[in-house]
Amino acid sequence: MGNLYVGLLHFPMRNRRGEIVATSTTSMDVHDIARSARTYGVARYFVVTPLPSQKEIAWRIRGFWTEGERAAEASRRGEAMEYVVVAEDLEETLEWIEEAEGARPLLVATSARSTTKAEIPFDELRRRLRTDPGPVYILLGTGWGMADELIEASDVILPPVMRESDFNHLSVRAAAAIILDRVAGDWDERT
Amino acid sequence: MGNLYVGLLHFPMRNRRGEIVATSTTSMDVHDIARSARTYGVARYFVVTPLPSQKEIAWRIRGFWTEGERAAEASRRGEAMEYVVVAEDLEETLEWIEEAEGARPLLVATSARSTTKAEIPFDELRRRLRTDPGPVYILLGTGWGMADELIEASDVILPPVMRESDFNHLSVRAAAAIILDRVAGDWDERT
Repeated sequence: MGNLYVGLLHFPMRNRRGEIVATSTTSMDVHDIARSARTYGVARYFVVTPLPSQKEIAWRIRGFWTEGERAAEASRRGEAMEYVVVAEDLEETLEWIEEAEGARPLLVATSARSTTKAEIPFDELRRRLRTDPGPVYILLGTGWGMADELIEASDVILPPVMRESDFNHLSVRAAAAIILDRVAGDWDERT
Repeated sequence: MGNLYVGLLHFPMRNRRGEIVATSTTSMDVHDIARSARTYGVARYFVVTPLPSQKEIAWRIRGFWTEGERAAEASRRGEAMEYVVVAEDLEETLEWIEEAEGARPLLVATSARSTTKAEIPFDELRRRLRTDPGPVYILLGTGWGMADELIEASDVILPPVMRESDFNHLSVRAAAAIILDRVAGDWDERT
């Protein structure tokens, strides 16, 4: 059983005109995905942004729940936030995982659109997580999706969620939850 | 193939002390769940609150994307928001569905905790949606979950998502996405 890591990337992303930009860190992305990640047993959730101001925001969101008054409350939100790590870029998170695991993770891109990258079916990634001790690292994009160079740098890509739907504009929070459920959900126990 | 409806309820809910309250309507709940609902072919997404101020907020969020300047933009968010209906209470939404369908829907509660209510497995609800022409209406709670009387008023309840996880505190946005994927996702085409 391999450890699962999730990264929410804010650069290099596309905006609605296809230009490469750094997107903003939002409190809701940090919170929602932290709670989903913790529910599905994710080892670490990386919030990745090169902008110092955005990194500070991400750390502050994390700290709000893990330090001081809130941390002492009965609420278990702080528990999810303890798994959040703020990082500068993909390379820094890969180094983090390699140091923790002693191995480079299988780097898995995601996209709402079909690409030419080699796809790994959800069921296959699920099987790999259960049978292979190697770590798996799923990348999530923001804005209008990750730049091609990030997809190219990955080992494989998951198929778009609901590829055949005539409307495929899930929030990254919803997409993250669905992807985690498909690859790490309690399928065997669900019926 | 029956039509699927989703309702996000704000009353009667429990707060963290177990008291019955009306929770606040949030922009993120309206948006995220509207986008997920539209992606999974949901017929209508009801935002249900008895508070006039909250209803007005919900209509304003909807109108921001469906009327005026934004509606004319290339963004397809407005398309998801057109499926949002703001309603006063559960009864009003049931009347809406009965008028549209000529039949009362199967009323399906959800909860993050196990209850004594009769559970319908996710796969069974999925099969029913595909084989039975009757409508299905899934209720989502807010705050610390729906009051017992709402669960009692439902026909059945879905099992908690990830019941065996040691942390089960998904946001309602994440839970909605996962539940829709389990009962209406592209399982047959996913591998």
